Amino acid sequence: VNELNLTYEEATKLRFFIDEPTFTDLHWGMFVPAIKGQGTEEQQEKWLPLAQKMQIIGCYAQTELGHGSNIQGLETTATFDSKTDEFVIHSPTLTSSKWWPGGLGKVSTHAVVYARLITEGQDHGVHGFIVQLRSLEDHIPLPGITVGDIGTKFGNGGYNTMDNGVLRFNHVRIPRNQMLMRILQVSREGKCTYSDVPRQLIYGTMVYVRQTIVSDASIALSRAVTIATRYSCVRRQFGSQNGGPETQVIDYKTQQNRLFPLLASAYAFRFVAEWLKWLYGDVTARLNANDFSMLQEAHACTAGLKSLTTTATADAIEECRKLCGGHGYLCSSGLPELFAMYVPACTYEGDNMVLLLQVARFLVKTVSQLGSGKQPVGTTSYMGRGEYLMQYHSNVERAEDWLKFGAILEAFEARAFKMVVSCAQSLLNFPNPEEGFAELSVDLAEVAIAHCQLIVVSKFIDKLKQEIAGKGVKQQLVYLCNIYALSLLHKHQGEFLATSTITAEQASLATTQLRNLYSQVRPNAVALVDSFNYTDHYLGSVLGRYDGNVYPKLYEAAWKDPLNDSVVTDGYVEYIKPLLKGKLNLSRL
Amino acid sequence: VNELNLTYEEATKLRFFIDEPTFTDLHWGMFVPAIKGQGTEEQQEKWLPLAQKMQIIGCYAQTELGHGSNIQGLETTATFDSKTDEFVIHSPTLTSSKWWPGGLGKVSTHAVVYARLITEGQDHGVHGFIVQLRSLEDHIPLPGITVGDIGTKFGNGGYNTMDNGVLRFNHVRIPRNQMLMRILQVSREGKCTYSDVPRQLIYGTMVYVRQTIVSDASIALSRAVTIATRYSCVRRQFGSQNGGPETQVIDYKTQQNRLFPLLASAYAFRFVAEWLKWLYGDVTARLNANDFSMLQEAHACTAGLKSLTTTATADAIEECRKLCGGHGYLCSSGLPELFAMYVPACTYEGDNMVLLLQVARFLVKTVSQLGSGKQPVGTTSYMGRGEYLMQYHSNVERAEDWLKFGAILEAFEARAFKMVVSCAQSLLNFPNPEEGFAELSVDLAEVAIAHCQLIVVSKFIDKLKQEIAGKGVKQQLVYLCNIYALSLLHKHQGEFLATSTITAEQASLATTQLRNLYSQVRPNAVALVDSFNYTDHYLGSVLGRYDGNVYPKLYEAAWKDPLNDSVVTDGYVEYIKPLLKGKLNLSRL
Repeated sequence: VNELNLTYEEATKLRFFIDEPTFTDLHWGMFVPAIKGQGTEEQQEKWLPLAQKMQIIGCYAQTELGHGSNIQGLETTATFDSKTDEFVIHSPTLTSSKWWPGGLGKVSTHAVVYARLITEGQDHGVHGFIVQLRSLEDHIPLPGITVGDIGTKFGNGGYNTMDNGVLRFNHVRIPRNQMLMRILQVSREGKCTYSDVPRQLIYGTMVYVRQTIVSDASIALSRAVTIATRYSCVRRQFGSQNGGPETQVIDYKTQQNRLFPLLASAYAFRFVAEWLKWLYGDVTARLNANDFSMLQEAHACTAGLKSLTTTATADAIEECRKLCGGHGYLCSSGLPELFAMYVPACTYEGDNMVLLLQVARFLVKTVSQLGSGKQPVGTTSYMGRGEYLMQYHSNVERAEDWLKFGAILEAFEARAFKMVVSCAQSLLNFPNPEEGFAELSVDLAEVAIAHCQLIVVSKFIDKLKQEIAGKGVKQQLVYLCNIYALSLLHKHQGEFLATSTITAEQASLATTQLRNLYSQVRPNAVALVDSFNYTDHYLGSVLGRYDGNVYPKLYEAAWKDPLNDSVVTDGYVEYIKPLLKGKLNLSRL
Repeated sequence: VNELNLTYEEATKLRFFIDEPTFTDLHWGMFVPAIKGQGTEEQQEKWLPLAQKMQIIGCYAQTELGHGSNIQGLETTATFDSKTDEFVIHSPTLTSSKWWPGGLGKVSTHAVVYARLITEGQDHGVHGFIVQLRSLEDHIPLPGITVGDIGTKFGNGGYNTMDNGVLRFNHVRIPRNQMLMRILQVSREGKCTYSDVPRQLIYGTMVYVRQTIVSDASIALSRAVTIATRYSCVRRQFGSQNGGPETQVIDYKTQQNRLFPLLASAYAFRFVAEWLKWLYGDVTARLNANDFSMLQEAHACTAGLKSLTTTATADAIEECRKLCGGHGYLCSSGLPELFAMYVPACTYEGDNMVLLLQVARFLVKTVSQLGSGKQPVGTTSYMGRGEYLMQYHSNVERAEDWLKFGAILEAFEARAFKMVVSCAQSLLNFPNPEEGFAELSVDLAEVAIAHCQLIVVSKFIDKLKQEIAGKGVKQQLVYLCNIYALSLLHKHQGEFLATSTITAEQASLATTQLRNLYSQVRPNAVALVDSFNYTDHYLGSVLGRYDGNVYPKLYEAAWKDPLNDSVVTDGYVEYIKPLLKGKLNLSRL
């Protein structure tokens, strides 16, 4: 970055192409932003130049061995000692050991450490502190600091290029000015004062981070779909007639039924990610104007979409691997590593289940305020038509009617709204609302999914209202939009039927229409994945080669395996030969 | 085996505890059985003693680079040369290279090779041939044979302990008596004669192999569930009140809703595997008595259950990993490797989608023969009550009614039967039945799943009609049986509603009852997984430890990582120090 004089955006783009998790992700993606977001101006002036020139390397030490999602449960303490004007950072228990931070294990010299602020005997909750971990001279951990790597992770590449770390403090002292004090200041005497910086700012950051995760989901998904689609055209199985070639597997309806909804999802997630980027801009502009009216809705919407898209993408990568048959299991297919590298997205930056429940709470609150005349905003504005939606029964009569975006949109709206209302009503039966939330959490999660699916469908439809360049391109995207929506409708048929949004007959028409659409997409399937425009180098998959020259290259790749360096394998003399000659020494067993 | 004088069964059990794929799996599991099943008596007399003493090591070379599921599409040829009384084994194309056989890459000295038999210019289809690959003196591949390993596979352990191989033949000659001739004999002159050995025997073998796969599924699933259940009791997140400990995650309904149906499935698959073992015995006895009446049904049933249980188990292992939160991503959790090692089961011994379509064909055929008075047998015998089931509407009125096995069974029977009938009718609309099968294959696969789920539910219920020892054990199993059935009913609600088997109200009652059952299972969840009786050593999971002492052991495990052998990491001097000092040489980037 420094050598090449790149801007922050250019550097981010370059790191994206490295396509391998590394300590710099956390340095630039979390350490620097944390100081920018939570540090005072003096702190930024002191630390940012050091970080930007990489004279220090930082990481983000939040999660602990016993504490993941619940930040308020963190145990590490930062106790103010007014005698020396220092904080004492300490790990009081084993479960308080920092655990997972990327870049921490072997590389970082500094960390933003989250710890409970304790001054004058009082616990003021969790705050961030800049702590030096290793000597800048010889990289040896400073006194009181125990730091190391947490061990091997999923996959044989994947996140094993990242030094996720463990970190313990034994009464480590740092100067008072290394607490990040933009929100809360601790004075020389140990008194706490909150600044007038709006605390909602933190939601802005979360919207930003999660928006990038949705965008990453659309990228990961489109990579997997590209590989599976291309190879499904190369691969042939069964169906040979009169000694001709076998059928391309992409021509099987069962393959199309598994693959094309994923192709449609890749586009759907891409468009919703684009929209989220716009939303973040909008949120930022409003925050700067001290307008917080849309913040909660934007936060819920981003949290829900993060959960929806990452879960769907993780499952889809594995499904794409299976769609490649046995060869998908070879690392040279690129899919095992893509999966192993992708799945943490379901857990980091908010566990997907925890996020769904946050969304559901927001939805229930929104519905319960409808009576009081509070207008729902943004992605919940459909709830303003609550009376209409409660009475809604689809009027689809023929399979083609399911091609109309209006019919799709209203069905998704009615299903989501009826489900929210039903949950909200059930909650009223509990004397204690928290107990109700706990008991009904499974239903609440389903409600949140229904709402988030509606968002993705509606943003896809919005996109198609715009001009789209290229002959026939828009028509193909219309097919994909219909496939996305109707495949969800088929999968969640039970909910559409149980809420009387559609009838069994209409459900059957939707399924018929869905399967008809596959034939429309089939001739352009390869073009639709080619347009993601990934190079063979970036895809890293023999099966997903642009030129379709799969088998010769797969054969070639095998011979590069180090096991093939020698014709007679290592261990032949020690193990195989004695076995064959019946001279294996029993004691060696 | 030979040193310890074990029986075949004892040896199989011991190999199971090694719990790592290795070349001996294929030697004992495929090479030896292939000779036993397809070899003549003389061939068995000659080759079996050599194999049993491991004076030769064999593998099973069927799959080719371009050909997986479709055995009839294999390209390798075995051309009879009557001049020399030999077969010439040859790989005419790149795609005909043998690809995947386990044990082939580096270890095996011999293989049963499947190739197209060609004599007198005629192609007689695919048959097995015993071919020596490597010298028994120095292990060097014999002339005309190219053999090696196909490269790295999914996971960082998993199947990478197995030398899956690639093999090509350049006109390799073997004596005529090395073709396995139990079914088809080739004479000195090159004439083919079929023996009177019933060809259905091959179905018996498939029933056997797939039966063991279902049993393996129940084992893999119960391992994953054991880990997730135990760790869900150890792990606490959120919900702390008045500074007390946080809530055990197993107490969250969302966790129970994901975990307990998997626990129930582990038991369900175990019981259906037990029953399949009995079925195989029954099939064998009937085959010996030349009774083929049940064979087709037994074959379809085993194929379907292989597909159903392996798909469910692969998904469940990954779900269990997610249920362990972030720590499930560490290899020390045991789950990543279990997953990577397990997933091939969805593809080998019949791709799961291909198998479902075979089952569906059988079901459609069974239904279409009902009119002609042919009585459906075995697991299809419910179709004999077709008229009743077509008219069936569940009479459930209260949530508790869903506890009755009769109500569950009839609902599953009616759903499956109505779906088969509906598909069979749609097929009649096609002038060409094969075209109909292709067009409707997605629906057909759903039909097959509905039927197979019914089998598992009904075998679970049958099991509970027997005496079960232990106080309260039976009651717990009854709860699990209900959870298994009702969670499927919830998941496939759409099908139960669309076939008018149940009403929206009844679906909602089923869901209510399902969630009530979780509270019944919660107190015994740990006992229910402890009873699988896996040792910590076998489980290989820090999270799944029997004593629950997870965090100290996780912490300990981290320090064993080789990266932690040195305090200052390798590469510090070369890369990190120059970076920090701003002296990184640009050319090195």
